[in-house]
Amino acid sequence: MAAIITAALDAMGGDLGAAVVVPGADIALGRHPDMHFRIFGDQQVIAPLLDRYPRVKQATQFQHTDVAVRMDDRPSQALRRGRWKSSMWLAIDAVKANGADFAVSAGNTGALMAMAKICLRPAAEIYRPAIAGLWPTLRGESLLLDCGATIGANAQQLFEYAVMGAAMARALFGLQRPRVGLLNVGVEEVKGLDDIREAGQMLKEADLSHLEYGGFVEGDDIGKGIVDVVVTEGFTGNIALKTGEGTARQIAAYTREALNQSLISRLGALLAWRAFADLRQKLDIRRMNGGVFLGLNGIVIKSHGSADAEGFASAIEIGYSIARNGLLQKINQDLTEYRISHATPSPAPSPPKVPV
Amino acid sequence: MAAIITAALDAMGGDLGAAVVVPGADIALGRHPDMHFRIFGDQQVIAPLLDRYPRVKQATQFQHTDVAVRMDDRPSQALRRGRWKSSMWLAIDAVKANGADFAVSAGNTGALMAMAKICLRPAAEIYRPAIAGLWPTLRGESLLLDCGATIGANAQQLFEYAVMGAAMARALFGLQRPRVGLLNVGVEEVKGLDDIREAGQMLKEADLSHLEYGGFVEGDDIGKGIVDVVVTEGFTGNIALKTGEGTARQIAAYTREALNQSLISRLGALLAWRAFADLRQKLDIRRMNGGVFLGLNGIVIKSHGSADAEGFASAIEIGYSIARNGLLQKINQDLTEYRISHATPSPAPSPPKVPV
Repeated sequence: MAAIITAALDAMGGDLGAAVVVPGADIALGRHPDMHFRIFGDQQVIAPLLDRYPRVKQATQFQHTDVAVRMDDRPSQALRRGRWKSSMWLAIDAVKANGADFAVSAGNTGALMAMAKICLRPAAEIYRPAIAGLWPTLRGESLLLDCGATIGANAQQLFEYAVMGAAMARALFGLQRPRVGLLNVGVEEVKGLDDIREAGQMLKEADLSHLEYGGFVEGDDIGKGIVDVVVTEGFTGNIALKTGEGTARQIAAYTREALNQSLISRLGALLAWRAFADLRQKLDIRRMNGGVFLGLNGIVIKSHGSADAEGFASAIEIGYSIARNGLLQKINQDLTEYRISHATPSPAPSPPKVPV
Repeated sequence: MAAIITAALDAMGGDLGAAVVVPGADIALGRHPDMHFRIFGDQQVIAPLLDRYPRVKQATQFQHTDVAVRMDDRPSQALRRGRWKSSMWLAIDAVKANGADFAVSAGNTGALMAMAKICLRPAAEIYRPAIAGLWPTLRGESLLLDCGATIGANAQQLFEYAVMGAAMARALFGLQRPRVGLLNVGVEEVKGLDDIREAGQMLKEADLSHLEYGGFVEGDDIGKGIVDVVVTEGFTGNIALKTGEGTARQIAAYTREALNQSLISRLGALLAWRAFADLRQKLDIRRMNGGVFLGLNGIVIKSHGSADAEGFASAIEIGYSIARNGLLQKINQDLTEYRISHATPSPAPSPPKVPV
């Protein structure tokens, strides 16, 4: 029998805190009974919730703290106030102490990345961590990274994002050799930035056994799913992610408005409700919730601050899948393959960067 | 009576060439009878088309050339082969020679920008031209620039994009004082790149009479229409534009699929056809067709290479509106207001950049 997977949950992050964390854990547990939880937060709030979700209570080791990182704390403030004792820190620290396979927090991204970096440290072979997000496509799902851990990336860093993203696509989608593309403004090789060109060259030459280099992709290729992993630096990645989300919400608003304009269109919408239910499910941003921090000695997942219980459950389940399928080992294996075949020296530690 | 507006049309650009240019001119002329055309291209192809559209023929001064810029020509190749004699060059040159108020081409963007820069030259007060595109929003329409003229932009350049974009929003949307936002990865002032922060500071301090600075906006704010003009450098702008377009197409594909899944959903869709027709119109990317080159001594508009006649007509009509409403004078007026109040020296000419 497979080992239990343990998730460490920060129950004081996000707009809704424990009110979505405990029900979210219940949903995830329903689909993955081989899970345990470690939950960190305010006993006064969480104990009654655990009483309402006895299945979660039974699978949970709870630890009280009343120190919470605020959504508007800057990373430095969060560290000053929350190191060692906040629910966010304790969840990450549980991963470090091998008390959990991954941590999930809906707290503020900058603080979470800063704490994760300090507590878990970047993995030995990695210059810089990145945040990977899921993107629904016409063919299924793809990954986009970096969704905003750091602004800017050189060729070496883009290369590492590609390797980490491919490893995550193997762990999450069960692919043997995911296709990886570099986000660019044109598909011809003459175009684009030097760093992107150089990263493309590196990926082509590396010819890794678990990564197929798919060349440059443009913004409108992401949703087509022509590659499994889309790689870009954090500023562009964040803009692309939010622009895609915003456009989806905008069209949903148009559609609602259009279908409500007359009795007959409402009747039509009613008849087609099954179709719209499918559509809603396909576009359900909650299923895509969960930004995965890659490149650290441990898995940390950022749930959207406004995610509901179903969304928080998705973030937990992403963690479950990648932990179950050995994400960290896969990343390490791929980078080692590259380093051995190219005999490059281990990287010097990069200077600390302020996360987005 | 207002003066006639003359459009110079490159009839050999894009995937479809004259076959969309002449019918597109006919559509535009139907809505704006106070237009004339100068059409450049191959007589053998265009003469029969003009015979089929007598209204266009009557309003057109035609000039033959059989030199066309190819869609895959690099800017340098296009210039070598097409300077002085290609349909693209001749259309731009008509603007320079005051034979037309603006030029439209569906030819390749890099070549068009290179020729426009060489033929028309950047305007006296402008460091660097940009491409502005239309974005449908929940409140109407906004502009995004730079959509890909140049990779990267410093604070001064972002500031000028903001001024040019605001002038275009005045000319196109009839606004008195358009709201302008800077695209960034966070709304708090502490976030983002130095250049963006500095541009924000400049816009705030400038306090222009025709531009209201709206602060930082994120990717998902574009579609909400919380600002009339979204400013960013060309790489990010291009990714955002294409990601938005791609997401819209993706959802349209989902919707078609969902509504076709059963007889009853098809019946529902039929009943709601009016709603879907409205929706289609709202999302009609053709209405948004036309990237406007800002910052040159003349107006040049890039129509999408695959645009149909309706799309090409939109590009012509954008040109009509901004020429009719004195775009170039508005840009000049706003920059002059800033330069006088801040007494900055005129910029040195910037080194030529390869457009995207």
